[in-house]
Amino acid sequence: MAATNVFTIDPWGVAEHGLDIPGLARAESVFALSNGHVGLRANLDEGEPHGLPGTYLNGVYELRPLPYAEGGYGFPESGQSVINVTNGKIIRLLVDDEPFDLRYGKLLSHQRQLDFREGVLRREAEWTSPAGRTVRVTSSRLVSLTQRAIAAIDYQVTAVDGPVRIVLQSELVANEQLPESTGDPRAAAALEAPLLSEAAHADGTKAVLVHRTRFSGLRVAAGMDHLVEGPEHFDATAEYTENQGRFSVTTVLKAGERLRLVKFIAYGWSATRSLPAVRDQVEAALTAARFTGWDGLFAEQQQFLKKFWDTSDIQLDGDVELQQAVRFALFHVLQAGARSEERAIPAKGLTGPGYDGHSFWDTETFVLPVLTYAMPSAVKQVLTWRHATLPLARERAAQLGLAGALFPWRTIHGEECSGYWPAGTAAFHIGADIAVAVARYCRATGDTEFEKTLGLELLVETARMWRSLGHHDSEGRFRIEGVTGPDEYSAIADNNVFTNLMAQTNLRVAAETATRHMHEASALGVDTEEAATWRDAAAAMYIPYDEKIGIHPQADGFTDHQFWDFENTPPEKYPLLLHYPYFDLYRKQVVKQADLVLAMQVRGDAFTEEQKARNFAYYERLTVRDSSLSACTQAVIAAEVGHLDLAYDYTAEAALMDLHDLGGNTKDGLHMASLAGACIALVAGLGGLRDRDEELSFRPRLPAGLRRLAFAMVVRDRLLHVEITHQRTTYTLRRGAPMTLLHEGEQLKLEHSRPVSRPTTVPVTPSELCIQPPGREPARRQAQAGLPIGVVEHLPAE
Amino acid sequence: MAATNVFTIDPWGVAEHGLDIPGLARAESVFALSNGHVGLRANLDEGEPHGLPGTYLNGVYELRPLPYAEGGYGFPESGQSVINVTNGKIIRLLVDDEPFDLRYGKLLSHQRQLDFREGVLRREAEWTSPAGRTVRVTSSRLVSLTQRAIAAIDYQVTAVDGPVRIVLQSELVANEQLPESTGDPRAAAALEAPLLSEAAHADGTKAVLVHRTRFSGLRVAAGMDHLVEGPEHFDATAEYTENQGRFSVTTVLKAGERLRLVKFIAYGWSATRSLPAVRDQVEAALTAARFTGWDGLFAEQQQFLKKFWDTSDIQLDGDVELQQAVRFALFHVLQAGARSEERAIPAKGLTGPGYDGHSFWDTETFVLPVLTYAMPSAVKQVLTWRHATLPLARERAAQLGLAGALFPWRTIHGEECSGYWPAGTAAFHIGADIAVAVARYCRATGDTEFEKTLGLELLVETARMWRSLGHHDSEGRFRIEGVTGPDEYSAIADNNVFTNLMAQTNLRVAAETATRHMHEASALGVDTEEAATWRDAAAAMYIPYDEKIGIHPQADGFTDHQFWDFENTPPEKYPLLLHYPYFDLYRKQVVKQADLVLAMQVRGDAFTEEQKARNFAYYERLTVRDSSLSACTQAVIAAEVGHLDLAYDYTAEAALMDLHDLGGNTKDGLHMASLAGACIALVAGLGGLRDRDEELSFRPRLPAGLRRLAFAMVVRDRLLHVEITHQRTTYTLRRGAPMTLLHEGEQLKLEHSRPVSRPTTVPVTPSELCIQPPGREPARRQAQAGLPIGVVEHLPAE
Repeated sequence: MAATNVFTIDPWGVAEHGLDIPGLARAESVFALSNGHVGLRANLDEGEPHGLPGTYLNGVYELRPLPYAEGGYGFPESGQSVINVTNGKIIRLLVDDEPFDLRYGKLLSHQRQLDFREGVLRREAEWTSPAGRTVRVTSSRLVSLTQRAIAAIDYQVTAVDGPVRIVLQSELVANEQLPESTGDPRAAAALEAPLLSEAAHADGTKAVLVHRTRFSGLRVAAGMDHLVEGPEHFDATAEYTENQGRFSVTTVLKAGERLRLVKFIAYGWSATRSLPAVRDQVEAALTAARFTGWDGLFAEQQQFLKKFWDTSDIQLDGDVELQQAVRFALFHVLQAGARSEERAIPAKGLTGPGYDGHSFWDTETFVLPVLTYAMPSAVKQVLTWRHATLPLARERAAQLGLAGALFPWRTIHGEECSGYWPAGTAAFHIGADIAVAVARYCRATGDTEFEKTLGLELLVETARMWRSLGHHDSEGRFRIEGVTGPDEYSAIADNNVFTNLMAQTNLRVAAETATRHMHEASALGVDTEEAATWRDAAAAMYIPYDEKIGIHPQADGFTDHQFWDFENTPPEKYPLLLHYPYFDLYRKQVVKQADLVLAMQVRGDAFTEEQKARNFAYYERLTVRDSSLSACTQAVIAAEVGHLDLAYDYTAEAALMDLHDLGGNTKDGLHMASLAGACIALVAGLGGLRDRDEELSFRPRLPAGLRRLAFAMVVRDRLLHVEITHQRTTYTLRRGAPMTLLHEGEQLKLEHSRPVSRPTTVPVTPSELCIQPPGREPARRQAQAGLPIGVVEHLPAE
Repeated sequence: MAATNVFTIDPWGVAEHGLDIPGLARAESVFALSNGHVGLRANLDEGEPHGLPGTYLNGVYELRPLPYAEGGYGFPESGQSVINVTNGKIIRLLVDDEPFDLRYGKLLSHQRQLDFREGVLRREAEWTSPAGRTVRVTSSRLVSLTQRAIAAIDYQVTAVDGPVRIVLQSELVANEQLPESTGDPRAAAALEAPLLSEAAHADGTKAVLVHRTRFSGLRVAAGMDHLVEGPEHFDATAEYTENQGRFSVTTVLKAGERLRLVKFIAYGWSATRSLPAVRDQVEAALTAARFTGWDGLFAEQQQFLKKFWDTSDIQLDGDVELQQAVRFALFHVLQAGARSEERAIPAKGLTGPGYDGHSFWDTETFVLPVLTYAMPSAVKQVLTWRHATLPLARERAAQLGLAGALFPWRTIHGEECSGYWPAGTAAFHIGADIAVAVARYCRATGDTEFEKTLGLELLVETARMWRSLGHHDSEGRFRIEGVTGPDEYSAIADNNVFTNLMAQTNLRVAAETATRHMHEASALGVDTEEAATWRDAAAAMYIPYDEKIGIHPQADGFTDHQFWDFENTPPEKYPLLLHYPYFDLYRKQVVKQADLVLAMQVRGDAFTEEQKARNFAYYERLTVRDSSLSACTQAVIAAEVGHLDLAYDYTAEAALMDLHDLGGNTKDGLHMASLAGACIALVAGLGGLRDRDEELSFRPRLPAGLRRLAFAMVVRDRLLHVEITHQRTTYTLRRGAPMTLLHEGEQLKLEHSRPVSRPTTVPVTPSELCIQPPGREPARRQAQAGLPIGVVEHLPAE
């Protein structure tokens, strides 16, 4: 995991000084703006050079064939891939007829900066054209968190020397040419130029393009409108073709004069609504945005973010780099979920096309636990989307001979899109991941209305799936066989502990919730007999345990398997899945990502303290973290069992995944689950938060490298603030009615504005040694926290 | 399994009366002729109508891409498919300018007949053209068992009423149009018109076409030459285009006059030799065939077959239908292997394109055990081919991180062509299947030269693979994990009993053989330490056993799995793999084909008598026989544990697989393993032959439905004859030096022409009940043996 940081360190933002052309794609992800509905990669305003152009609408995808050398019953034949929709970001600039292209001429300075309190990407450049003309360009770009169809750009060009003839071409471009992909040529073909023109129009300062996707049949409209400020004399024209809308402004600037273009961009899409309806929706959004104006949009954005940070900030003293990374994480998690509105949150949010734009268990397992206490309305939206896909999930369950609903391992629209079932459909735990997210949301919000309608149905249908998937053996134990747990270096195993414990929770919660809402449950066909079978299966759930060595095997037989030969696995052979066959990974003791360790986080009640310590040490030796969904979980359990420095290391790894490009693939989009995982590592790891029961429970621990950790949480309309120092932990109820919580098992009663403090426990050093596979140790944070290594404070402009 | 028989019953042949046009493809397989090098489906001489035109050369294939929705390390990317090469069978007939096409005009009679002692497909038809002209056509076709490049046709047309103008067009046709396939369109594209013309020529009575395959780059030459007999006046011309050679004969026949055309067809192919070399080889073969003449070829054919039947016949009294089926089986097994000469024996022989023309474990496990005692030279050829692929198998092992050699699950040329690894590459037992075939061949022939050269290297390299695949656990047991056994309704399981026992044999035999040939072994790098690790691993081999129920689980945990819900599986849901997902099949107790039961056949020494009986009964309940590789094995163990009627039923099922089209896919080619399996069922099942040790061992049993079973075997240059009646079993040494064998454990010494008799044991009815899954019971033979049901003795011609 190579770590380089080209961004400056700032507790409230990310900035880039100079322009790193080979690193463009990575910066396009890091600076991406999104509200969960519209996502814009941080492509330069002028379109080129680019790493990977990207404009995404949540839920807009194209279908592509999923081919198999040897097929099988129930293998999905059609996949879904996010597409790059009409690009509205482009504002081309010509300086005396020479295009403003940073690869030519002389770039005197270039800076991009994203402040997490503003939600605006600011850019400043000073450039001398090959012909010797110098201009200063500034632009500010936002994707509105308050007007979900809207993005806006405030673009200004100033003549440093003049007079100079300036042309601005503000564009909408459909079917942009993308860099060649390396995947299946047929898939690439389906995704090349996916948009068929349905309508195009330009007039005055406006242009609108309407397209339809070829196979998925989704109608996508994009529109733009403009305000121009500048010298008295300028010409403006609007033109269009099928795949392009263009608004051009021409003028001559004297030295020191400025031309300003404010561009409003609006998007709308629908699978069902008519062309006029979708087009009018976009035009209406443009009208509203123009009415609000740039300043208005900016003010709304700041207000929205202020509220978010007031209720969700995580503060760290002693490690400014980690402070930055955690706020970066929170900001992007917010951007991914803020306005997803009955759509999924993809693994990369709307920051890039990685994983085809699919949503996985990541959302429910890593992203939603953060949003639940930061922006619960976003959680409700995601779960409402899951509920909307229930008909598809029921169909899938029936196809596979199961009762209830089987949710897809990866999808955009709801259909299973996994083309390799041992690491796809076999990961049945997705059902319980959703159920547990439902239960957490209901507990954290008290949203009874949701619980007894959509929530209940999700719980019931997943419980039915589990009940039909498992069976009682001759000793009466309930077994779940032939499934794949979180660790993708094992597959199709029997009685995966994580899966069985999650299924147990799912079955229990379904039975409890059905009992609480008997009328609504009855409408779903649940009777007391059915609920009893769930309780019975949950009570009889088989959890394998290897008595000989005192360890929980990840699944039946796991601890009998051969150990991976870590000693003879050189660093260049990681990630292992690119260098070793599945068959070898599956049959040996090697773990891609926390699996049994995640089970200990989500179901800590099922393990003794000693088991946790022993299991953690055992699996540490086997876990290579070839997945970004691992470090955060290891951080949580490391903290719980007393390895505080290790917890700190893993927290930093999760948090720096994208800012340091640890996986080498930030260019394809940000790792939302790892970013959310960094927040979990701090709150559930160092903060020791557990939220399985009605009362929140904390067991705070602080590593030597940090002086203070503080965080805010929204719980049932209350605002709770927790502050941890090495001396004490202080709980403050900043809003709402009195509440209780547990600190180290002691019940504390909180009243508004009356902080309660308790000493912070200093853990004894654990007896179990923690060793990672050779070469797979996390970077040691302690050494770096004071003076971050590899950090360039300011990259010189030239 | 629908059973219909459209063929007449005859102990020495198969005949068809009339013409069943929808059943053409099936008859094309049943009547297919082959010598293991060249294979001709029984397409009508005139080319049309046809079911599926087919002319195959062993080893001639085209490459095609293997696509994956989600790829993985080590997934093969290129597949191999047998192709339909230049068709030399075609002789078109025009009667007064009307094509002889049985779909038109009036077919007065039509008969095809294949005599297993002749090896000639004879046809007789009388036909009135739409214009009212009547001709009699007879043709005889053979693929020479003595001249391996040669096929020949004796075609005669007689005018019943005349005079009539007759044109014969004898053709070579390359890139024949085939019926549309339903598979992957890209694969189909690669296989459509796979031959690129390199040379074509026609002159006098001859024509030769040379082509090259587009991607695999194989050069294929086909030639024909002709003799004409008939009325004094006839015209003959030879012509050619790139993809066609044509020899035309025109004459006028008076009533009763006859035109005879003898056609010699020759094939040659090479991956390396030059165009002139391959062309000349074909021309030389043609010259030799013409020199031999039709009568000479026919005489050689009969002589070859007489020798075969003398040493290999299996005789049955009491069931003429089964007698026919067993000789049909032996005949086709001979045809598949007779002249394969350092090429594989495909699963379908050269009778059809099923399974892409691939060779599987079927060959070593089912076909070679029969050929070992019938035509051991053919076994040596196949194993020599395996040896020739060792470099590819070593490469594959290295790619997957294993030592030694890993042979492909399915292939034509030697590369792994399996596109679904859980039921392909994971079936590691292929290595041991080959090793056991080597050991059997060496024991049965005493071919020490082979043993210490090619045989030893095969044993060593497979033993090395096993040693690196398995590992010792903390209790010192040698475990082999994450593999797939014979049963394809389980996959990626730990310690499959069949696999572990076969690996144990492989390791032991490798160590013993290396010790016996220390010099040669040392040249392969084997030292005493390495051989010791093989013996140690074999000795420590872990064989799971479920103490609770007293059953060997097929693999770890199998007996803990849920039972398949057979009661609620209607008949139309079989074969299960077309109606249920792999994940569900894999995790439940349901067996596609004998697996643990096969282990009891090949390694009976590893089980007690009681275990065999209990295991057999246990797995009978679970085995659905969705594979044709099951009934024969079930027959063998049914006989051993005393279920003689059941053994008889299964024997008939294996034997009638193609004559009764039990799988519904005889049209794609014959099931060589099932046919060979029928012979195994009789010899190893009812005959009770076991050949694991130096001495052959027999425990004969005869079901009530049979009066007598007799068979001949070649063993170390001896000819052994075994005759079993209900009263006694008689062993006769018909050729060669004295030998010993075991009858019911008693050692008998045989001398030339001095039969030794012992009473045939009448088994006690076993206590274990044998029940199959509902609806999956085999057809009861006892009821049918006297008067076969569903057999049409003579299908009327009109």
